[in-house]
Amino acid sequence: MKVDGKHFRSIWREADGWSVGAIDQRRLPHEFIVAKLTNGAEAAEAIRGMLVRGAPLIGATAAYGMALAMRDDSSDAAIERAYQMLVATRPTAINLKWALEEMRRLLRPLPPSARAEAAFARADDIADEDVGINQGIAQNGLALIEAIAAKKPGEVVNLLTHCNAGWLATVDWGTATAPIYLAHDRDIKVHVWVDETRPRNQGASLTAWELGHHGVPHTVIPDNTGGHLMQHRKVDLVIVGTDRVAANGDVCNKIGTYLKALAAHDNGVPFYVALPSPTIDFNVMDGSQVPIEQRGGEEVTYMTGRTDDGRIETVRIVPEGSPVANYAFDVTPARLVTGLITERGVLKADRASLSAAFPERMATAAE
Amino acid sequence: MKVDGKHFRSIWREADGWSVGAIDQRRLPHEFIVAKLTNGAEAAEAIRGMLVRGAPLIGATAAYGMALAMRDDSSDAAIERAYQMLVATRPTAINLKWALEEMRRLLRPLPPSARAEAAFARADDIADEDVGINQGIAQNGLALIEAIAAKKPGEVVNLLTHCNAGWLATVDWGTATAPIYLAHDRDIKVHVWVDETRPRNQGASLTAWELGHHGVPHTVIPDNTGGHLMQHRKVDLVIVGTDRVAANGDVCNKIGTYLKALAAHDNGVPFYVALPSPTIDFNVMDGSQVPIEQRGGEEVTYMTGRTDDGRIETVRIVPEGSPVANYAFDVTPARLVTGLITERGVLKADRASLSAAFPERMATAAE
Repeated sequence: MKVDGKHFRSIWREADGWSVGAIDQRRLPHEFIVAKLTNGAEAAEAIRGMLVRGAPLIGATAAYGMALAMRDDSSDAAIERAYQMLVATRPTAINLKWALEEMRRLLRPLPPSARAEAAFARADDIADEDVGINQGIAQNGLALIEAIAAKKPGEVVNLLTHCNAGWLATVDWGTATAPIYLAHDRDIKVHVWVDETRPRNQGASLTAWELGHHGVPHTVIPDNTGGHLMQHRKVDLVIVGTDRVAANGDVCNKIGTYLKALAAHDNGVPFYVALPSPTIDFNVMDGSQVPIEQRGGEEVTYMTGRTDDGRIETVRIVPEGSPVANYAFDVTPARLVTGLITERGVLKADRASLSAAFPERMATAAE
Repeated sequence: MKVDGKHFRSIWREADGWSVGAIDQRRLPHEFIVAKLTNGAEAAEAIRGMLVRGAPLIGATAAYGMALAMRDDSSDAAIERAYQMLVATRPTAINLKWALEEMRRLLRPLPPSARAEAAFARADDIADEDVGINQGIAQNGLALIEAIAAKKPGEVVNLLTHCNAGWLATVDWGTATAPIYLAHDRDIKVHVWVDETRPRNQGASLTAWELGHHGVPHTVIPDNTGGHLMQHRKVDLVIVGTDRVAANGDVCNKIGTYLKALAAHDNGVPFYVALPSPTIDFNVMDGSQVPIEQRGGEEVTYMTGRTDDGRIETVRIVPEGSPVANYAFDVTPARLVTGLITERGVLKADRASLSAAFPERMATAAE
């Protein structure tokens, strides 16, 4: 997507042919800074510290992390060490494990001398495949937006999204945002209600930033607001991303997604989840089996922003002595999901539909 | 309630016999500052600017505002001017209008020379009545907490609340918190999940502050979290306050309340609303008729807090150029409300129950 007219991906191989560039998402929207990753440990730290985040981008970063690790040590033991270091960074997004298993399967049979080059090539492919998948999601989701636009000619189609399932959460295009960008580029009038998404504010910090820099009309709202908007017919369609979809169609996504799904259901608003197929976990029967990451309390207790005179400051917003809890994800039951927008079409959120659309993934589950 | 062992109300007549002291709630939890109100305009500004907030406290402040206004000018025209100035400060909480109509009804027949003294006396009574009402709510709500405690002997009763319906929102005790304080004082083990309550963070800033200073165990959570906690049986009971209850039992309260009511309903968690009877509006048939205040965008765009070295700073957290929306309240349909905890008992959220419990209010509706 574009940042003020210039095309960017969220991660890329630098001109030196091996170091990896990535937008430092911890600094947005206040500063646009590119970080350089030069070894496996830096890639792991980038994922753990959320310099990069978003399930698909976590997968791509892990793939590059394996490649960087092979550059320093391409032994069998190093494959295993890099795998373990990277897989332990975050527990919920299944794309991480998917990408690492892809890399390990590729690298093990190769002679050590060939591993680094092959790993970089496969990491590039994983990144390119993500872009291709998301373009497929864009096409399949576009039809949903077009159908609404056709019912109210000349009027704006109002979408609501939670957290950031934008191009910053992927390599490019995003998942939830892919159909929105495509609709916007096709001159369909869209407007996006952007959930702030406490505690890390990825909606306000990242989704609003990327929509704004690409020129898509949007409004930032507190996470409390979506239900009221749906009651008052101000939302035509909800599209969110996901960190892991269970085999039965249950959707694990950023904390608060479940509340929006309930409101959509209560008001007859279609609730769609956009996902690349690597986000499906056929080894997990339902959402109750997805591990829910608990993150540090400081994400709730403190808020970082920019003062009017330009300083970046971090302020405490919870009283001293008050404990906090920080569950990062929740599970939306499949019964509340209108459909899953994938690169192979819009599917019902159930086991039969998922396994019919991705038989090869189903076949390799629990390998 | 107590602030570190010392008893406070949220508003009071000062020792000089006429000026009005109130805790400046805009400064909490970072600073504990008492403001002094000396005329009707200052009282109006205190309500508009949210130096004081919470439906019952807004009512009491408006009553004192009328008294302060009478001290400066006790003419018939001044009654009307003060009424209009004060009633226009905020649109949603019906207690404001209720208190002002009480005062106007009292003052009009009196000779001007008697009005100021009578107004102060009635304002004191309204404040005392609020405390008495809330003690009634405490008793009636306590039974609900005791019933849960009896089912899990020795275990903690987990409550969830949204925004601040604590003693700071009233003159003392609070509405939603009244049963919680009483249970705590009776040595029932309680723990309160405190919704942060964006955008103004009254949960983190006020509810956590008052619970902490009174010694009640609690945990601050982002507004997105409650649904996940309810799915995982970590909430036994939800109690919230309200700014206006319609004659059919629909509940208007801080934005986001509806989302928690949906989650409670979906998980079989009891969802109660605590209210003093002046919060019932028998002139409003259902929640769709309650005006929803839209407040300034800066409440969403900026966040104020304290830096680790003690400075109070206000930082921008939404990208420049991204519009924001700030709806302050939403309506929870009566069908999602398990019961209304009032000073006259726990009622079903419907017209028959409300009018049976408060026949004198019903009779004077639409006067």
